[in-house]
Amino acid sequence: MAEKRLEDQMKFLLEIDKEKNILRQTHLSGHGRRENDAEHAWHMAIMIYLLREYANEKIDLAKTMMMALIHDIVEIDAGDTYAYDTAALATQQEREAKAAQRIFGLLPEDQREEMLALFQEFEDYETPEARFAHVLDNLQPLMLNDSNNGGDWREHQVKRSQVYKRNARTSTGSETLWAYMEGLIQGNVEKGNIQDC
Amino acid sequence: MAEKRLEDQMKFLLEIDKEKNILRQTHLSGHGRRENDAEHAWHMAIMIYLLREYANEKIDLAKTMMMALIHDIVEIDAGDTYAYDTAALATQQEREAKAAQRIFGLLPEDQREEMLALFQEFEDYETPEARFAHVLDNLQPLMLNDSNNGGDWREHQVKRSQVYKRNARTSTGSETLWAYMEGLIQGNVEKGNIQDC
Repeated sequence: MAEKRLEDQMKFLLEIDKEKNILRQTHLSGHGRRENDAEHAWHMAIMIYLLREYANEKIDLAKTMMMALIHDIVEIDAGDTYAYDTAALATQQEREAKAAQRIFGLLPEDQREEMLALFQEFEDYETPEARFAHVLDNLQPLMLNDSNNGGDWREHQVKRSQVYKRNARTSTGSETLWAYMEGLIQGNVEKGNIQDC
Repeated sequence: MAEKRLEDQMKFLLEIDKEKNILRQTHLSGHGRRENDAEHAWHMAIMIYLLREYANEKIDLAKTMMMALIHDIVEIDAGDTYAYDTAALATQQEREAKAAQRIFGLLPEDQREEMLALFQEFEDYETPEARFAHVLDNLQPLMLNDSNNGGDWREHQVKRSQVYKRNARTSTGSETLWAYMEGLIQGNVEKGNIQDC
């Protein structure tokens, strides 16, 4: 049984290697290639650790980092859904729920339940950990895009109202980081990178 | 002062984006492209969380995950040193120490000291956290290479004695995972992927 447990864990760990092939719309700094989900999650987890002093509420650090590290694993099956793609957003939840069952289903039962719950907790956006993880899910691409003079926003003709809608709950995770983000957004509106409407 | 602190943290967080361009010798599963350091670290951190039950000693989970997430950041300046490249290994420590000073030096003083210490702790290999992080630093590429029928070992004509030398202390982090790894290594020796000497 012990051997079967480790084998199942390893099956899952090998399967998630595929996340490195799921490309996001965000480009790396220095006007680089498109970022993949694993890189984004790596970056988020480090940001959670180093910026945790700005969380509105006390968070469980390892849990929040793990939540960030796994939150996009479902995209191995469901694909990346761009933050401003309305059609894809409509079916996102159903596609991702199915993917979560298959992929986390590779794990031994206790860890399958734990990971499904952690993924759902992120989606539900109702705990201090989920709220803070979402801050970094939004700040990380904003930081990269700002460093690239807003290339991704310009390409997709993104409006300030869309950015604000996506960040409607960001301040519930961190007032301080949301204030910082508002400054970045405003700067990019002024440069014409984000449309002023 | 508070603003300066966050700005310094963000400078560091943007700088480390460059780790996504540092390629390792390991290839992704499915005979994919070469893996980069950020992807490797993402994978390691998830493995630390899900396989922690196999650590020989109790570990601080968030600390071990962060150690894994940052352990290759120095390679932004120092480059990746292949595990079996003797010439590069001779200068690795000096190159990486200099890189650590520059890159972690972007952070506010308290976090600079914390990250330098965490990086050094990994290198020193003397705490339960460092020992367990090293297990995953070795198991993660072994898992990928095994899934690719040993392509990286064959390309570099790697010998079993080299793999064992690199893993000389792996059992001090996890007896169970080292036993599992020995099985994978033996299987690849039998297939001729690792040279039997």
